Amino acid sequence: MFRFSDLSMTLQHQLREFFDEHIYPNEMPYREQLAWAQNRFAPLPLMDQLKQRAQDAGLWNLFVPKSHGEYSAFGGLSNLDYAPLAEQMGRVTWSPEVFNCNAPDTGNMEVFMRYATPAQQSRWLTPLLNGDIRSSYAMTEPQVASSDATNIELRIQREGDEWVLNGRKWFITGALYERTKILIVMGKSDPKNPDRHKQQTQVLVPKDTPGITLVRPLTTLGYDDAPIGHAEIHFDNVRVPLENVLLGEGRGFEIAQGRLGPGRIHHCMRLIGAAQRALEETCQRVDNRTTFGRKLSQHQSVREDIAKSFAEIQMARLLVLETCQKMDEVGAREARDMIAASKISVPKMVQDILDRCMQMHGAGGLTEDYFFAEAFNYARWCRQADGPDQVHQMALGKQLIEQYGKQ
Amino acid sequence: MFRFSDLSMTLQHQLREFFDEHIYPNEMPYREQLAWAQNRFAPLPLMDQLKQRAQDAGLWNLFVPKSHGEYSAFGGLSNLDYAPLAEQMGRVTWSPEVFNCNAPDTGNMEVFMRYATPAQQSRWLTPLLNGDIRSSYAMTEPQVASSDATNIELRIQREGDEWVLNGRKWFITGALYERTKILIVMGKSDPKNPDRHKQQTQVLVPKDTPGITLVRPLTTLGYDDAPIGHAEIHFDNVRVPLENVLLGEGRGFEIAQGRLGPGRIHHCMRLIGAAQRALEETCQRVDNRTTFGRKLSQHQSVREDIAKSFAEIQMARLLVLETCQKMDEVGAREARDMIAASKISVPKMVQDILDRCMQMHGAGGLTEDYFFAEAFNYARWCRQADGPDQVHQMALGKQLIEQYGKQ
Amino acid sequence: MFRFSDLSMTLQHQLREFFDEHIYPNEMPYREQLAWAQNRFAPLPLMDQLKQRAQDAGLWNLFVPKSHGEYSAFGGLSNLDYAPLAEQMGRVTWSPEVFNCNAPDTGNMEVFMRYATPAQQSRWLTPLLNGDIRSSYAMTEPQVASSDATNIELRIQREGDEWVLNGRKWFITGALYERTKILIVMGKSDPKNPDRHKQQTQVLVPKDTPGITLVRPLTTLGYDDAPIGHAEIHFDNVRVPLENVLLGEGRGFEIAQGRLGPGRIHHCMRLIGAAQRALEETCQRVDNRTTFGRKLSQHQSVREDIAKSFAEIQMARLLVLETCQKMDEVGAREARDMIAASKISVPKMVQDILDRCMQMHGAGGLTEDYFFAEAFNYARWCRQADGPDQVHQMALGKQLIEQYGKQ
Amino acid sequence: MFRFSDLSMTLQHQLREFFDEHIYPNEMPYREQLAWAQNRFAPLPLMDQLKQRAQDAGLWNLFVPKSHGEYSAFGGLSNLDYAPLAEQMGRVTWSPEVFNCNAPDTGNMEVFMRYATPAQQSRWLTPLLNGDIRSSYAMTEPQVASSDATNIELRIQREGDEWVLNGRKWFITGALYERTKILIVMGKSDPKNPDRHKQQTQVLVPKDTPGITLVRPLTTLGYDDAPIGHAEIHFDNVRVPLENVLLGEGRGFEIAQGRLGPGRIHHCMRLIGAAQRALEETCQRVDNRTTFGRKLSQHQSVREDIAKSFAEIQMARLLVLETCQKMDEVGAREARDMIAASKISVPKMVQDILDRCMQMHGAGGLTEDYFFAEAFNYARWCRQADGPDQVHQMALGKQLIEQYGKQ
Repeated sequence: MFRFSDLSMTLQHQLREFFDEHIYPNEMPYREQLAWAQNRFAPLPLMDQLKQRAQDAGLWNLFVPKSHGEYSAFGGLSNLDYAPLAEQMGRVTWSPEVFNCNAPDTGNMEVFMRYATPAQQSRWLTPLLNGDIRSSYAMTEPQVASSDATNIELRIQREGDEWVLNGRKWFITGALYERTKILIVMGKSDPKNPDRHKQQTQVLVPKDTPGITLVRPLTTLGYDDAPIGHAEIHFDNVRVPLENVLLGEGRGFEIAQGRLGPGRIHHCMRLIGAAQRALEETCQRVDNRTTFGRKLSQHQSVREDIAKSFAEIQMARLLVLETCQKMDEVGAREARDMIAASKISVPKMVQDILDRCMQMHGAGGLTEDYFFAEAFNYARWCRQADGPDQVHQMALGKQLIEQYGKQ
Repeated sequence: MFRFSDLSMTLQHQLREFFDEHIYPNEMPYREQLAWAQNRFAPLPLMDQLKQRAQDAGLWNLFVPKSHGEYSAFGGLSNLDYAPLAEQMGRVTWSPEVFNCNAPDTGNMEVFMRYATPAQQSRWLTPLLNGDIRSSYAMTEPQVASSDATNIELRIQREGDEWVLNGRKWFITGALYERTKILIVMGKSDPKNPDRHKQQTQVLVPKDTPGITLVRPLTTLGYDDAPIGHAEIHFDNVRVPLENVLLGEGRGFEIAQGRLGPGRIHHCMRLIGAAQRALEETCQRVDNRTTFGRKLSQHQSVREDIAKSFAEIQMARLLVLETCQKMDEVGAREARDMIAASKISVPKMVQDILDRCMQMHGAGGLTEDYFFAEAFNYARWCRQADGPDQVHQMALGKQLIEQYGKQ
Repeated sequence: MFRFSDLSMTLQHQLREFFDEHIYPNEMPYREQLAWAQNRFAPLPLMDQLKQRAQDAGLWNLFVPKSHGEYSAFGGLSNLDYAPLAEQMGRVTWSPEVFNCNAPDTGNMEVFMRYATPAQQSRWLTPLLNGDIRSSYAMTEPQVASSDATNIELRIQREGDEWVLNGRKWFITGALYERTKILIVMGKSDPKNPDRHKQQTQVLVPKDTPGITLVRPLTTLGYDDAPIGHAEIHFDNVRVPLENVLLGEGRGFEIAQGRLGPGRIHHCMRLIGAAQRALEETCQRVDNRTTFGRKLSQHQSVREDIAKSFAEIQMARLLVLETCQKMDEVGAREARDMIAASKISVPKMVQDILDRCMQMHGAGGLTEDYFFAEAFNYARWCRQADGPDQVHQMALGKQLIEQYGKQ
Repeated sequence: MFRFSDLSMTLQHQLREFFDEHIYPNEMPYREQLAWAQNRFAPLPLMDQLKQRAQDAGLWNLFVPKSHGEYSAFGGLSNLDYAPLAEQMGRVTWSPEVFNCNAPDTGNMEVFMRYATPAQQSRWLTPLLNGDIRSSYAMTEPQVASSDATNIELRIQREGDEWVLNGRKWFITGALYERTKILIVMGKSDPKNPDRHKQQTQVLVPKDTPGITLVRPLTTLGYDDAPIGHAEIHFDNVRVPLENVLLGEGRGFEIAQGRLGPGRIHHCMRLIGAAQRALEETCQRVDNRTTFGRKLSQHQSVREDIAKSFAEIQMARLLVLETCQKMDEVGAREARDMIAASKISVPKMVQDILDRCMQMHGAGGLTEDYFFAEAFNYARWCRQADGPDQVHQMALGKQLIEQYGKQ
């Protein structure tokens, strides 16, 4: 059984209370503010109020890892201790931002903590930790399979004391959001380097730099995920000073590798929260709905679906917790088998659970009157985010065959 | 092997040509007209142009069944002959309206053909057949499980020479569309009738009748299906003359029964077209995309997914054609086992095929750059439309147990 | 809808009557004769009686294809016309032998019809058609992936006026059966031929030829499939005269290609019969069994399982019939996409249906008191027989990508 | 992460070594001794040798729970501490008996520990703990759905100073085994008692009591599970003294309830060992087998299957460990939701993993040359053992709806 620290337990309790008091009652108002927004990618007033309340309550920057505890009011949390907090946030899709814990900013802040110079940190990390600005991570490109990072084609060329960027990116989460000010851009700076993992560089590009065009918002299953959203961006002779390089020229791949483990597992944690909520709401629904002379809850197939979903949630949660603890103990690199196992299992499992729960809600289950559809979209999207599942299955399968196959 | 009539073969050929010439090239323009529309539920200019072209080409009212051949320029088609035409239309989600073949108007027109008085027909059926107006069928209610039609609660009371309607409906497809003028409303007129199937009546209600409120558009998985859409509607002392009754007081259930068989099977036909297109586009994609040093098409798992999808499409199509032929030969009532088998199999199968094809398209597969996401939403929705699959499984299971269980 | 010839309809009727009168009542006696047999691979007296009756009834050699109608009392049947007959036989696993329609003899007889010399035919084909002897087809080898026929390693060398065979085979169906007299053996005669499809030769080897060792019976999921069974065989300097070559030296691959299409589809036909029977028996069971105060048939999940199984059987059957008709019209080679689609879909679908039906029979469903377990083993085995499904998915996927991918 | 006690860690290590030295090398000899046994239900000499070695090594009665530590040389183990030991034993289907840890004896010994009188214990429990005799638990009846224990019909009547038993039982594991001496029989002693859970009584019946007929061995998927096996038994005026009652008249249901939790979870533990072994062997196989010019391990679909199986095993194992720890902390009754979750998830998951692994082994994977088929049968059987999964889903679904539905 997984044991959480006292600190985590206290935060879990406070977070649940915060949800009861501030988040659930604001689900409908949030939806309405967004629906009536003139600009879907502008900050919502409600979000700013809730952020202030979360800061007042000390529920802020919960994602900060123990290894960078200096950035957290309470010294950071282990992955294991953070898991139930992220699960709680997963119950309301837009809630992580309230606690400054939303993707991609959490991953970006970690990048700044680990790889940025003090000057870069004071300019970008500090306002990010304060929730004053947002950030994007520009990796994926439309024309190549970006799960293989060596395919990246956006060109970064050094000209005098500047980097010059040319190319296209898409699925750049957050870039449309008005509050987003800084992009971390991965590109190819040295395409002829014989070491294919040294051809890439990452540079910091303020969003208002000339030459950047936000071409359009992208949707997934019809959702634009506003106000954070996913953008297609074109870079046309975009120039930034040399000091905007992150870590160093040719070290882009190294940063990319370090960034992704925790991000994937955060998605999984949140998805489990979505599934758990779906299960609970479905239990309430089936007990209150009658069809063909019998409560839905008395139909054997309904009970089977609920029992199966419960068991799957248990398994998914345990897998994620085990992964977290392994990450805490041996690091993300050594835990990559478990990270991959979580990434390929949890989103699909949660997608199926949500599909079942929607079905038990009738046609209404597909609408915005419930949170299922939006969560379903999130789960489906996660099967592509950070690389399609198939890529992780390939890597994990290969690793296992090496491990067991040589015996 | 299923043999289509010469007429059907000719129409299939013409329809494919019409798609090549007019529909596929207009997919992007259609999307843009809709995106920029001030009112998402207003008719699109492009649609009107295409409708005119379809009429000119004689590709109009293809859905008209042989039994009502007088309403068709070429004497109507059998279900079997119509199937490949509907499949073709399923390749572009919004295309059926071009040919005056979209739900729910096709089902409503059939209702008018079978059950309406000559006066009712000349007022509503004629403009519907001409494509001048659209219609809705108001059955589902938010507060009860409407798949069991005896649950319907909207009250229809006779007062003097009027029917007075009070109650709520939702998922009323087409009601928001500006061109929609008439609603067929199912309600309860005689709640104390000991025969539970005689308590219902259907009346014709012009959309502009006072007391009708279009409360809001409903979405499914984030899609509003504009411009046709799905509405929530409130009826507050809505009054129509007695002659607006359809077929007769207490015969609403009878009409509902007669309406649904063909509608379900039309959905299945169209979904097969969507799946077939997805398969074809995926075959093209995987042959043009390289990852980890190999074409996607050379990965064994990609080939397996494509092979499986092909086999499933074959099976789904054959099931639907067999169902059509049985309907043609013995009528929808006697073919209800096959209709149910199609309804519970095809949408789920197509949803899974689309899910696979999206996955093979990477993150882009989830966007509007491809037709997958919208088709996925259509398939998912069809698992609820005309009653959740579970209700049909219940009825079919019961029927089979009776048929085989007594031996 | 698929239309069978009058001849097929008559035979279907007669066959059903024969089952009612002679096959079903002998299921338990057959099982007992086998259980008490001293030699599990000896012919059973009951089988010989039933064969005589089938011959008397004219239900003999139903498998003979129309193209070789001269070997049939009624001129042979098309694949389509044979399908419902094979489906009927699939209802009792051991019954095909009663009608001289069991694998691998049917496939072998076709090989003799197509490729054998008159002398070979009179020596082997005639007694096979009479049911006096049985035969085996020795292809699969334990040490190589035999689904890729070019991997075959059994060595066939020409020495003087003899072929000399050395090597190992396994899963040689029928070889253990006492009545089996002749083996068709595929081996490598010309390993250095630059055309990898000309390296193989097939020769006829009487089972009593010195040097042949029947090493052991093989089981699948615990079943030995006695009395026909599957053998491992070693060939140690086995010598046969040159005239025992089939078709000609270097033409083994060509024969292998021609043989397999119909065999695969016969398996599918029979499996559908097994699934159909399982469905029928399950309908009877659930109507006669009470648990937790309610008939099994009243549980919603039971109805759902039965409805799903019905739909799947319909789809599987239609797929097979469509495949048959395509084979009849354009030949097995041109119909290989549909043959592959059947091969990869039907056995897995039937396995799942049987699994469900067993489960609805409680623990007893796993025993020999019912036919489920044996049929389950047959379905599972068919996913490997004639090559694992994955090989056929690979070929079909590749073909589809070529077909659609180049557009 | 789950932490095992030092004792458990030591035993795990010793057990793994014992397997390397004594169990794996004897798999083929065991199979052969059984194959050549004149009586398949007689003790095998090899088993007795191995039992002696296990006793010498102190690897004996590992199952004894901490609560009854007095029966164990090392004071008993918690469920959590036992789990990895049982998993190890699951790698070889017949191995648990070597360590006196096989079903149904473990469950029966627990019954004796908890409910038997000192006299009953000294007569039966002591030789059971020594491995000198074996026992059966006679619950399931062929004519009723025995998962609902109130359905049990075997009649137990008090006549003078004797209990008289009449009725039929089946699936009585171990009853055919020659070494089995005692049956615990559940029957109905008071059919008219208004409390349906007080109608049952359990009595101890020596196997050689007159009136007992071992009718036949039952198979599952073709396996007789010899030498332990599953029997059908008839009781015809079987008489035992009154003192043979267990716990007391009318308390049979109470015993049945207490017995089953640990048994179910032991099955799950062992199945995980089978799946883990299957995964390991498959990794070795695919790295040593070439098809179509490429190692199996290089096919993307093979890697996906292996990755998926790894993730599923992790989830299944974590679920079982969590269940164990909950049982250790709050007792089996309070942990029944987790026990049910394990029971409905693990056997099906393991069945599917084994199915995949068999498929990656080609036709040979279905034979006795590998352990897959036997393990597959075990997994399939466990979906019925201790009640079909559906019954547990029903109970768990109901419990969850109550828990969450009332909020």
